[in-house]
Amino acid sequence: MTVLILTCEEDVTADMVVVHLDALGVPVVRLDPADLTGGAALSGEYVHGTFRGHLSAGGRLVSLSGLRSVWVRRPGTPAARAAEPSAWLTEESAQALYGMLRGCDAHWMNHPDAAHRARHKPWQLRLAQHCGLPVPATLITTFPQAAREFAERFPDLVVKPVSGAHPQDPPRAVPTSRVAPDTDFSAVAFGPTLLQRLVAKRADIRLTVAGERMLAARKATPADGDPDDVDVRFAPAATPWRPTDVPPRVATSVRAYLREAGLAYGAFDFAEDGDGIWWFLECNQSGQFGFVEVETGQPIARSVAEWLARPGPERRSRVNGRNTTVP
Amino acid sequence: MTVLILTCEEDVTADMVVVHLDALGVPVVRLDPADLTGGAALSGEYVHGTFRGHLSAGGRLVSLSGLRSVWVRRPGTPAARAAEPSAWLTEESAQALYGMLRGCDAHWMNHPDAAHRARHKPWQLRLAQHCGLPVPATLITTFPQAAREFAERFPDLVVKPVSGAHPQDPPRAVPTSRVAPDTDFSAVAFGPTLLQRLVAKRADIRLTVAGERMLAARKATPADGDPDDVDVRFAPAATPWRPTDVPPRVATSVRAYLREAGLAYGAFDFAEDGDGIWWFLECNQSGQFGFVEVETGQPIARSVAEWLARPGPERRSRVNGRNTTVP
Repeated sequence: MTVLILTCEEDVTADMVVVHLDALGVPVVRLDPADLTGGAALSGEYVHGTFRGHLSAGGRLVSLSGLRSVWVRRPGTPAARAAEPSAWLTEESAQALYGMLRGCDAHWMNHPDAAHRARHKPWQLRLAQHCGLPVPATLITTFPQAAREFAERFPDLVVKPVSGAHPQDPPRAVPTSRVAPDTDFSAVAFGPTLLQRLVAKRADIRLTVAGERMLAARKATPADGDPDDVDVRFAPAATPWRPTDVPPRVATSVRAYLREAGLAYGAFDFAEDGDGIWWFLECNQSGQFGFVEVETGQPIARSVAEWLARPGPERRSRVNGRNTTVP
Repeated sequence: MTVLILTCEEDVTADMVVVHLDALGVPVVRLDPADLTGGAALSGEYVHGTFRGHLSAGGRLVSLSGLRSVWVRRPGTPAARAAEPSAWLTEESAQALYGMLRGCDAHWMNHPDAAHRARHKPWQLRLAQHCGLPVPATLITTFPQAAREFAERFPDLVVKPVSGAHPQDPPRAVPTSRVAPDTDFSAVAFGPTLLQRLVAKRADIRLTVAGERMLAARKATPADGDPDDVDVRFAPAATPWRPTDVPPRVATSVRAYLREAGLAYGAFDFAEDGDGIWWFLECNQSGQFGFVEVETGQPIARSVAEWLARPGPERRSRVNGRNTTVP
């Protein structure tokens, strides 16, 4: 049975996984939805209560019933590279492709519904709390007075986007920034603002989970670092990422988080404080792992490949995204 | 406890429901996400493992823990009416509002995740088959040869969009059309095409379901009608909508469909053939019901109001969208 990888051509992280799938002898079809309806094609037939679907990409034809897993990596916008692209063709192609794939039996990393839900940061914070992960005190508000009161209770704050990346083209990551003590919060009325207690961190933690496999990396905060460099993505890389162990309580909570979220893959960011507590910052369901693997040597790509290569699914419900087992 | 209605100002169908909620003595807050962050405001605090959220609209403040239900009717684009609208502000506001609401305990009609999934027509067809509803033979394809072979097996066909409405501004419904016998299918290669066996219908059926309540209406096909008028939305209204009974087997299947789909509301379209069989065409999770209520006198708005007014939720999981009961 085949592994379907939905990603764009330039995705080199997917290449890392394909190497391992090849080594495992598992057939792979790589499809960029942007190639519909040029280099990629689809067909599905609903006749007499049955469904038969096929996909074709890179000269290979695969039956939807022959898929063991689907890896949604960095898929392009459907039909973006069509001869005459349009919003209508994109919508038709998206609905046809993902609508049909939703009817297949494969394991998903990650299922589109779970992925969509998991992007909501307010929901992430609530779920992390629910699963027993320590979450720094956080406020999301459009009330300036609420922001002022929060800043009185938690004087050392950071501000970060609610939604993640700025939707320009290409999307731009917005850094987490420290809030100055004399900040005027009146502009909060013009847009939802996420304020969070600054964790006095001694390290950043990136915990990558692929199926049951957890791989944590730690980047120590330099003692002489600028205290305003709160966002590890933008700080000077003075110290390297190094493999580290996952505390058992964190592992239990992270497993609960992924189970509740219905995710097979997640990249968790934590701030480690002076007592060694890992404070939950976020879980990116499609977080990059190439940079950690390169720096730590941890076998993340292989773990992803092994998960995708698992034996074909049991007979599960074909119609919902919850992978419930049909009795 | 309060009913939250997410809809735009001009939504008169919501007004019909509000009248019934008022009569039931249930407090209502009506919020258009487009009014963020002018007429509407939000705040949510995550401190010491707890979550407290508030919404404000139309001069009323409501606690998220005080919501009994959320009706997602015709919400505007978040922050569309802000003083300085932008894609970034829309994204931030959408994530803040829906991200927080996902953490509340309320009943949803319909939950955004279920609503999103339910829009995929290929998924609808598969689920309808799975639930025992008769589905006319359907092909969705970009292979001209598959279209030709399908047309040989089922000579009388209609073509319809895979995705629903054309995304122009305002969106435009695309009619279902009959396929001429001598059609050249080579253009199928340029965009996914949905072909379906034409049901020789003697009536159109609209079955509206709100919670446990099913209300069916039937519109007889005029004997002297134009055989090319296959889409009831665009055909001349020669005959009226009249209430009709739901065959018990259909009722059982429809209940299973909504349960699997996680929907509290659905508007089903069927074609009734000469033998009285109801053929599933689609289920619109946000389908209009005003026109049926006006023409048939069926109490759809009241049924929606009664569902929304149900006593506050049991203590269910606050973190996922599946309304699972917490033990």
